[in-house]
Amino acid sequence: MTGTAADVLARCAMLGEVSEELDGLTRRFATPALASAGEIVAGWMKDAGMTTRRDAVGNVIGRHGGGERALVLGSHLDTVPNAGTFDGPLGIVAAIAVVERLAVGGPQPSCPVEVVAFADEEGTRFGTSYLGSAAYVGAFEPAWLDHVDAEGITLRDAIRASGGEPDAAVDVRPPDLAGYLEIHIEQGPVLEREGLPVGVVTAIAGQTRARIVLTGEAGHAGTLPMDARHDALAAAAEAVLAVERRGRSEPGLVATVGALALSPNVGNVVPGEVRMLLDLRHADDGVRRRAAAEVRADVEGIAAARGVDAAWTTRYDTPAVVLDTTLRARLADALRVQGIPARDLASGAGHDAVVVSRICPAAMLFVRCAGGISHDPRESVSEEDVAVALDVLEHAVRAS
Amino acid sequence: MTGTAADVLARCAMLGEVSEELDGLTRRFATPALASAGEIVAGWMKDAGMTTRRDAVGNVIGRHGGGERALVLGSHLDTVPNAGTFDGPLGIVAAIAVVERLAVGGPQPSCPVEVVAFADEEGTRFGTSYLGSAAYVGAFEPAWLDHVDAEGITLRDAIRASGGEPDAAVDVRPPDLAGYLEIHIEQGPVLEREGLPVGVVTAIAGQTRARIVLTGEAGHAGTLPMDARHDALAAAAEAVLAVERRGRSEPGLVATVGALALSPNVGNVVPGEVRMLLDLRHADDGVRRRAAAEVRADVEGIAAARGVDAAWTTRYDTPAVVLDTTLRARLADALRVQGIPARDLASGAGHDAVVVSRICPAAMLFVRCAGGISHDPRESVSEEDVAVALDVLEHAVRAS
Repeated sequence: MTGTAADVLARCAMLGEVSEELDGLTRRFATPALASAGEIVAGWMKDAGMTTRRDAVGNVIGRHGGGERALVLGSHLDTVPNAGTFDGPLGIVAAIAVVERLAVGGPQPSCPVEVVAFADEEGTRFGTSYLGSAAYVGAFEPAWLDHVDAEGITLRDAIRASGGEPDAAVDVRPPDLAGYLEIHIEQGPVLEREGLPVGVVTAIAGQTRARIVLTGEAGHAGTLPMDARHDALAAAAEAVLAVERRGRSEPGLVATVGALALSPNVGNVVPGEVRMLLDLRHADDGVRRRAAAEVRADVEGIAAARGVDAAWTTRYDTPAVVLDTTLRARLADALRVQGIPARDLASGAGHDAVVVSRICPAAMLFVRCAGGISHDPRESVSEEDVAVALDVLEHAVRAS
Repeated sequence: MTGTAADVLARCAMLGEVSEELDGLTRRFATPALASAGEIVAGWMKDAGMTTRRDAVGNVIGRHGGGERALVLGSHLDTVPNAGTFDGPLGIVAAIAVVERLAVGGPQPSCPVEVVAFADEEGTRFGTSYLGSAAYVGAFEPAWLDHVDAEGITLRDAIRASGGEPDAAVDVRPPDLAGYLEIHIEQGPVLEREGLPVGVVTAIAGQTRARIVLTGEAGHAGTLPMDARHDALAAAAEAVLAVERRGRSEPGLVATVGALALSPNVGNVVPGEVRMLLDLRHADDGVRRRAAAEVRADVEGIAAARGVDAAWTTRYDTPAVVLDTTLRARLADALRVQGIPARDLASGAGHDAVVVSRICPAAMLFVRCAGGISHDPRESVSEEDVAVALDVLEHAVRAS
C-alpha cells in the first residue's frame, strides 16, 4: 500500500533528524538545515510523480496534474527551537502521501493539486510569522527584507545566502487557487480529552496582545509599613488573577499572562514596577474585544485602588479567521464515511491557513497529539490517528 | 557654637562627594573611595581632640578620654550603590559632633568615648553584612576571607590591598565596652507620619527569608483551555496576595515578595515555573515564625488546589535584637527634657547595633527622613531634626 500512516510517521522522523543543532531539532528560516529538509521533501514529491520548484523565499512546491486553479495542500517545514517532529512537517508529509494515493488511481480531483512546504511559519529567526505563506500568496512585504536576526543578518541577505531571490519575493502575484487544506497537530488537549482522532477547525482565533506596566513605589521591605505601600507586584498579582477569571468566564476564551518582569526585583525591596504581557484569544472577535476591554477595566480598577499607575498598550489585535464552510463540510463528510464524529473546534494557535485564506477558501484538520504538547521534543501522534487524517484528506481531495 | 546640626549636614554632604563613581554615591568596602572617606573622618576626629586608629579591616576609630570600658558611638561609612548621603555617615558625623561638644566643657561621661566609622555594614561588595562591626567586636569569621566580589577578588586580597591585615582581623578579642549608641535615619515613614523628629528604637526586627518555587506546567497560551492549566504564575499571584494579607493582619509585621522570575517568561506560553523570594520581619520572633509558618501553609494550599508543586527553602532566619532598656531610657529622658514625646519604634532594617549588642548594651536613635526614602540619592533629613538628635545623644553621653 502507498501513502500509509506508517510511511508518514517514518518521514516525520527522518525530517526530525535534519536540524541546525546536534542535539534537538531546530530548523529556522533560510538555514542550511531548512534547505536540506526542503531537498528531501522535493525528492519525495518527485517520487510521487510531482513536478517541483523552489520559489523566491525557499518554499518547496510540488504539482500533481495539469490545469489551472490548483487545490493546495501544505504546511510549514521550519520549526521553533528545540521542536517536536510533527508541528508543520506532518501536514507536508501527509499531503505528499495523499498525492501518492491519487497516483495509484481511483477518483481524481477536478483540479490540479499543489503541495507546499512553507519555508517560515514560526518566525523564529526574523520575527516574521507566516513569511512562507505570505510569499506564496503574493503578500510578502518589502519592509520585511530589512529585518535582522539575532546575529545582525538581514532577511534580504539570508534569503540570498540560501539561494533565494529577495527582490522576486516582493513581486509575486497572488495565484488563482481552488482552495487550501492543511493537516496540523492540535497543539491542545481537546481531542485527546474527548477520545477523538481528528477535528475540523472552524476558525483560527483572533488575538489581542497587550503590554501592561504597573508603576507603584519601590521601598525598603523592612521599614515600609504594609499600609504605606504601593506594591506594584501585589497589583500585578490581582491583575493576573483577574485575567484568569475573565478567561474562565467565557467558553472558548483563553487569557494568559505569560511574561512578567519586576523592577528592581530584589528580595528586600518592595517592587516599584511590574511589566507584563497579556495574550487573549477567541474565535469570535466580538467576544475577544469585549473580554480585552473588561480585563483592561479590571486592571485599571485594581491599580487605582492601590494608588498604582497602570499603562496599557495594545500591541496586536488580529482578527479571527473563519474557515470555509464548504471545505469544512467536505472534511466532515469524509469523517462521517468513516463513522467518526466530526468534532468542530477552534484553533487558538495561528497557522499558514490564516494567510492563504485571504486568497482562497481554506480549511484545516487537526490531529490529536499526546498530552496536547507541542513546541517540545515530546510532541507525539499515533499511527491510527494519522491513518484517519490521511483518509479524510484523501476523501476531501478526491471530492474536489 | 561647636558640633552644630549645620556642621553635621555639611560634613555628610562632603562625604557624599567621596565616591567610586563620578555620578552618584557608591562607596563599598575596601575601595579607595572608602579609604579616602576614612581619612577625612579621622581628620575630623583628630580636630575634635581624639586619638585615632585604623583597625585590621579599615574601621576608623577615634578615642576621647582615658580609662577602660568605653561608651561607643558609631555607624557605618560604606554605602549601597547609588546611595543617599545619610544612611551610615550621619551616625558617624553626629558622634564626632557630640565629642566636639564634650571637649568644650560641661558634665563629662564617667567613661571614655570611642567613635567608630564601620568599614562595611551594607555588604554590597562581598555579601557580608556587618563585616565592620563584626571585626570590631571580635566576631570576624575566617571563612569570610575566601568570599569573592563580582570581579573575583577575594575578601582577603581586598583587605590587604586596602592596607588592612586579614589575619589580624580574625584574631581580635572582644573589647570590654560600657555600651553602644547609634544614630541612624529611620528609612521608613513612621516618624514623618506622626510629625516627630526622632524615635527610640526598641528592637531590630528578626527576619525570615525564603525562596519559593512553584512548578506547574508550561503550555501554549492559545491552545491550552483554561480548565486544563496548571499555571505557575496564577498560583504565584495567589501566593503574593496571601503574603500581603498575612503582613497586614499583624501590627508591626512586614511581609514582602520582592523578587519573582518566570520560566519560560514568554508572552504566548502559560508559565511553567515561578521562583520568588519572601522577606518577612517582626520585632517579636514568635510572631514572625508563626507568620512564616502560616504563609508557608497558605502557599502550599494554593499550590495544591491548582495541581502545582510548591517547594519552600528558608534561606535566613535571624532572630530579633531587643535593645537595652537602660540606654533606651536614657535617650527617652533626653527627649523629655526637650519636651518631645519619646516614640518607641522597631527597626525593620538591620544595623551595626545588631552585632555590637552581642557584647554590650546597645541602643539606637532614629532620625526622621523625608518620605521614608533611603538607599537612594533623594535621602534627606532636616537640620532641625538633626539638632534634636544631637542634643539627645549629647545628653545620653554626658549621663553615661
